[in-house]
Amino acid sequence: MILHYAQNSRAVRVAWLLEELGLQYEIKKYVLGDEEMRSPNYLKINPLGRVPVLEDADNTLTESGAIIQYIITKYAKRKFIPDIENENFSSYLQWFHFAEGMIMPQMNIIVVETILLPPERKNEVNVKRATKLLSRMLQAVETHMVGREYLAGELSAADMMTGHAVIMSEKLGVDFIEKPNLQRYTKRLMNRPALKKAWCL
Amino acid sequence: MILHYAQNSRAVRVAWLLEELGLQYEIKKYVLGDEEMRSPNYLKINPLGRVPVLEDADNTLTESGAIIQYIITKYAKRKFIPDIENENFSSYLQWFHFAEGMIMPQMNIIVVETILLPPERKNEVNVKRATKLLSRMLQAVETHMVGREYLAGELSAADMMTGHAVIMSEKLGVDFIEKPNLQRYTKRLMNRPALKKAWCL
Repeated sequence: MILHYAQNSRAVRVAWLLEELGLQYEIKKYVLGDEEMRSPNYLKINPLGRVPVLEDADNTLTESGAIIQYIITKYAKRKFIPDIENENFSSYLQWFHFAEGMIMPQMNIIVVETILLPPERKNEVNVKRATKLLSRMLQAVETHMVGREYLAGELSAADMMTGHAVIMSEKLGVDFIEKPNLQRYTKRLMNRPALKKAWCL
Repeated sequence: MILHYAQNSRAVRVAWLLEELGLQYEIKKYVLGDEEMRSPNYLKINPLGRVPVLEDADNTLTESGAIIQYIITKYAKRKFIPDIENENFSSYLQWFHFAEGMIMPQMNIIVVETILLPPERKNEVNVKRATKLLSRMLQAVETHMVGREYLAGELSAADMMTGHAVIMSEKLGVDFIEKPNLQRYTKRLMNRPALKKAWCL
């Protein structure tokens, strides 16, 4: 398996999973925004010029959620995915999908406006609206995390999706002062050796 | 099962699946933007005030992708999900997740700017940027659909996610003139009795 990776990207989710599982993989590193990710060679692998990409024989996947389901199903006997008899089955599904459905659209806007656009094209209204909505989404996670260590029982792929999105929100500067459960949750996740390693490959 | 539904929302995906499977369900209908979706009673069911919501005994799910995986796994013996031996396994995963990862974030921006915001707060720059990016995302689907009837072999849950997102893009006014494969694809999907019914419940 080859993982195309960049720091501060969704590729961290995949590297985190691979490290938790102790699977062997080759890594190709990029820097977000780097020209190499728009080179003809890279666009052959992913025409949209994004990371992560996982190449595994004839299979090329570019969505972090798809890659995580792929690796777990193919190489890890569905570890980190509660099965249908598990009391956390529906909760797992809910929080696995919450990352891309609810958190990341707002994060994308904030990243575009505060990091990617040149200053003269930045729009403070967009940032404010996205930050307000992001905070509401995070409040839903905060409420769910009362009395919980992970999103769905034990550590699961839901943490690798939504947990990662929560950590990224905190790093982007979202105020966590009134979100004590999320503060504890992100620390708990960042203390895992697999995530520490995946964060800074 | 109770499905909380609104036309022109992601709830159509779930209704489509339920109709394809011929499963019994109760439906509660709302109108997008309606006050009923911000009423205390509704916020008890989904504090974020969105549709779809699926209630099934003790399980409440609010993400269309989660609901689809839940229903298929629990009530349909994984119909519409290719298994690991299927040649379309990885492609299925990729296109299942492409909807929320790549298409919907742009669609959200366009809907907010052109439908939800009052005229004086609309921002044409945001619409243009999102439309350009959405068109690139749709081009990736167009390229994939050359010579294909569905995204991953037979009809699958990937079509219910990304196929629905493509149809919504077309209805929102994205130009499909140079996307002949998507034109055929959306027609093919809209000709399915289950989707026709789900669209206008």
